Amino acid sequence: MTHLNADESLKLRFDSIENCLKTLRRQRYGTSDPLNETINYILAGDGKRVRGMLAVLCAEIYSGDFRHGLTSALALEMVHAYSLAHDDLPCLDNDDMRRGRMSAHKMFDVPKAMLAGDALLTDAFWILSCDAPAGVKGGENAVEPTWWHEVFCGDKARLGLVRELALAAGGTGMVFGQMLDVHWTGKSEKIPRDILDQMHLEKTGALLGAACAMGALAGGAQFQEAGDIRRFGRSIGLAFQVIDDLLDTESGTGKSIGKDAAQGKSTYATIMSPEEARQRAEALTTEALSSLDRLHDRGQLLRYFVSGLLKRRK
Amino acid sequence: MTHLNADESLKLRFDSIENCLKTLRRQRYGTSDPLNETINYILAGDGKRVRGMLAVLCAEIYSGDFRHGLTSALALEMVHAYSLAHDDLPCLDNDDMRRGRMSAHKMFDVPKAMLAGDALLTDAFWILSCDAPAGVKGGENAVEPTWWHEVFCGDKARLGLVRELALAAGGTGMVFGQMLDVHWTGKSEKIPRDILDQMHLEKTGALLGAACAMGALAGGAQFQEAGDIRRFGRSIGLAFQVIDDLLDTESGTGKSIGKDAAQGKSTYATIMSPEEARQRAEALTTEALSSLDRLHDRGQLLRYFVSGLLKRRK
Repeated sequence: MTHLNADESLKLRFDSIENCLKTLRRQRYGTSDPLNETINYILAGDGKRVRGMLAVLCAEIYSGDFRHGLTSALALEMVHAYSLAHDDLPCLDNDDMRRGRMSAHKMFDVPKAMLAGDALLTDAFWILSCDAPAGVKGGENAVEPTWWHEVFCGDKARLGLVRELALAAGGTGMVFGQMLDVHWTGKSEKIPRDILDQMHLEKTGALLGAACAMGALAGGAQFQEAGDIRRFGRSIGLAFQVIDDLLDTESGTGKSIGKDAAQGKSTYATIMSPEEARQRAEALTTEALSSLDRLHDRGQLLRYFVSGLLKRRK
Repeated sequence: MTHLNADESLKLRFDSIENCLKTLRRQRYGTSDPLNETINYILAGDGKRVRGMLAVLCAEIYSGDFRHGLTSALALEMVHAYSLAHDDLPCLDNDDMRRGRMSAHKMFDVPKAMLAGDALLTDAFWILSCDAPAGVKGGENAVEPTWWHEVFCGDKARLGLVRELALAAGGTGMVFGQMLDVHWTGKSEKIPRDILDQMHLEKTGALLGAACAMGALAGGAQFQEAGDIRRFGRSIGLAFQVIDDLLDTESGTGKSIGKDAAQGKSTYATIMSPEEARQRAEALTTEALSSLDRLHDRGQLLRYFVSGLLKRRK
């Protein structure tokens, strides 16, 4: 696999996710009522779709066809989008901007951003459970004429997808991490490193882990295999965070530079030296990537994708 | 069936739901971190558990055993609890009190109430999809030693439960109704009656409809039968709302009297005369209850329960 081929493969998969999201936005959230307008705006954020990409790449590992992971990719991107909309609210991070666009509550208002987030979170579970969603059929411009996965995996695996997503996003996962973040923000006491790890493992790592596990399950992996690849996702989530914290102090990640520090948030950059943080990120990455060795060639594209993400963040 | 027997039967089912909720609160949300404390408080609200009761009563109709509906009852009560916590927030209804207790954001704070709501909504889907939730086993005080339903219904029906709940609670259901409410609050223009109907059918009716359909599915009903009983649930939801609007102008429903009017909310009491509203509620009730006729004796306890709710609201 040359880098050129790999880049083309990744672009094809990314475009496929984007097209599915566009179809969803047009066909499910296309009307001009205030709720759908807000949802549409939130979903349109030009992210890297990291969670969606992990899902399709992991589905491909176990099935040979990345499309098996598309429904999971949609559900994951919906949950990620909801989490950003809620995190940005004045009562939490109070961020007016998100990747160069106004955050949802600035573009619309707080009630709309909150309710649109609630709807996206709920609808993600609809996506995972529906057979042939009313009003959502492949349009003439859809790359994927049907983006639901009924044809691909059985009911047991589909229930597994619901469980993975719910566990990762809920009160023991992402929301728990977010609450730890709220709890420690502005505290004069320095956050212990194990709590900071736990915060990011849940706030960021849990959903990345679920993305890998959901893709695997949708691609026909056994629950044991899904568990292995979930751990990989959680580890890279933590590595990303360490690197982001370093970047936040250096050049900014789309947020204002040093915003975390200004808000009184403890980060890896405040509890360890830049050199230590860099070493930590390197160790986490190496460990995570080496866990892909047992997949041999099948893990090549996933490895290339994740390495690229880590490099771009350096 | 005498009234005495019926009341005892209802009490047994209600106590069973309460016991399951207590087990859930103790075993899943029993630790003293800020997220779990808030969730625990929200779940403890001494409601009538109408959604849970509808689920177990409908499960009983199709299976002869109300316990088949207990997992759905838990998930429904969790979603209902989340919706109240979010609705009460300052950016929405700004209610400090809820059934005589402080609302969650007054008891704790806004971030905690919001995040606890997010967690409860997500965890409801975990409840529906888990086989043997880690850390949640029947304790010595649990009436239901295992409150999950693995033993009861197959994977296809369980996916149906997820779909029913997600559709009812999400962007075409409860949240859509809530957004309509936000949109029309404070408008000088009088809300058209069909929009007011739509608002309440989604905001309240959708989840009551899902409660009936989920109970039915968990009890082994066919999807067609579940659809019929979903319509029943939606209708009584609308009837409840008409009656509540009347009560709100008269004696209060736990909110401050006339609060809706003071907030500039259109209600049935403001768009029609009390006499008209009473007739509307009566007609909706009669129609809904008569749809139970086809269930013959099997529908007796459900009919008794719903009639009782409607009477208490008069």
